[in-house]
Amino acid sequence: MAAGDARSAIRLSPMEVPKASDVLANELRERILSGEYPEGTPLPPERELVTQTRMSRTTVREALRILEVQGLIRIKAGRAGGAFVQRPGEESVASSLELLIRGRQIRLASVHETREAIEPSCARLAAQHRTAGDLRRLEAVNEEIAASADLEGFLRANVDWHIAVATASHNEILTGIMMALSRAIYTTTHNEGFVNDEVRDITVRAHRSVTRAIKERDADAAVRRMTRHVHSYAAAALEVDERTTVSVPEED
Amino acid sequence: MAAGDARSAIRLSPMEVPKASDVLANELRERILSGEYPEGTPLPPERELVTQTRMSRTTVREALRILEVQGLIRIKAGRAGGAFVQRPGEESVASSLELLIRGRQIRLASVHETREAIEPSCARLAAQHRTAGDLRRLEAVNEEIAASADLEGFLRANVDWHIAVATASHNEILTGIMMALSRAIYTTTHNEGFVNDEVRDITVRAHRSVTRAIKERDADAAVRRMTRHVHSYAAAALEVDERTTVSVPEED
Repeated sequence: MAAGDARSAIRLSPMEVPKASDVLANELRERILSGEYPEGTPLPPERELVTQTRMSRTTVREALRILEVQGLIRIKAGRAGGAFVQRPGEESVASSLELLIRGRQIRLASVHETREAIEPSCARLAAQHRTAGDLRRLEAVNEEIAASADLEGFLRANVDWHIAVATASHNEILTGIMMALSRAIYTTTHNEGFVNDEVRDITVRAHRSVTRAIKERDADAAVRRMTRHVHSYAAAALEVDERTTVSVPEED
Repeated sequence: MAAGDARSAIRLSPMEVPKASDVLANELRERILSGEYPEGTPLPPERELVTQTRMSRTTVREALRILEVQGLIRIKAGRAGGAFVQRPGEESVASSLELLIRGRQIRLASVHETREAIEPSCARLAAQHRTAGDLRRLEAVNEEIAASADLEGFLRANVDWHIAVATASHNEILTGIMMALSRAIYTTTHNEGFVNDEVRDITVRAHRSVTRAIKERDADAAVRRMTRHVHSYAAAALEVDERTTVSVPEED
């Protein structure tokens, strides 16, 4: 075979060139996730990173912004400022789930289905792992719900109670998921048509009975009562949602 | 009161100045999430955005990178390149959950607890909403598991089956969560000590019986069988995990 033929047989496919800022962000991310840079570690100043990596200042800044958006570093301004390592938290899971829920215009039914999957397990684990502090928090939030004077106060305290149950499960993944779902549900039930005195009474009683099961470490009762509560709340919310959706064209 | 006294009574607190790139990213994010810019919409070129916003080129680039990291735009290189709007997907939820799981060194038990919460619900919804295509996919993956020649192939097909059940639920939130959990589980069970012929046989039979329930639209059986399967897999994986953890110091 002639050299010319051999050369023409070489075929390259289109290639993806990694961006410099991704290369740097990936490197730093691995070191943070592996625990090599623990929480609170200050990263070297921007110009130091430029010298060390021989990357441009723009690249270094972009890489830091990427890590900041992912919740892996916190950038503080001012004299004692700079970039500090941060462990990824429930917050970043919550915000990416929120993007998914809002950006895909996800059906409210999907949000409730997910809650019905998650919350009974949170209640079970809370009954097994709750501390005295968890219990005080649950009881305090129940009082807030009962005392809430307006819709805003009721919904906020309601969300706080559901997150407090998740927190008492001592499972960070379930807590992150519940934070995201709660916010989505808060937004969608932020509706005068939904909360009346009856709904509030039923909610307070349901929360108290779940809280009692968690207090008595009765996991089965906690699951059963939470399942019933979440299911009936979801059914009511979906009914209002349909009513709202349907009533708009009817007014024409 | 003298004018001097009145002036000295004015007190300002330390203030957070929002970053220019966050202001721009927030604005674009809202328009994408609200649906004003639908999927595939090209954003104006960088220099056009600079002119329109009177922000610096660095600021504009940073804002675009933030949106790219959040999965809200896709940046294509080349002549027909640029930034295109993308709807946030299950992928972004999966990767933020992954950051949480890896970065917090989350207990394997938490991952399994979350699976035990999620998967029975996925099976129930799959039995209710599965299409003929979903069913073909589930059956094809079961064949792959049975035919897999090595650990790698077995684990990959195993993960594919669990994600296929979630997909058949037609609930994007549950699917996103399952994608993240599966990857974490894939990594942690990537262990020769775990998968032997017995484990593989049991897995194939369990998957077939869940698939049958989904095919027959028997939601209760799907929940019951998936609950049992996930629970026994979790118990076995945790046992191996403890064995592995314990056996290392014993070799000293």
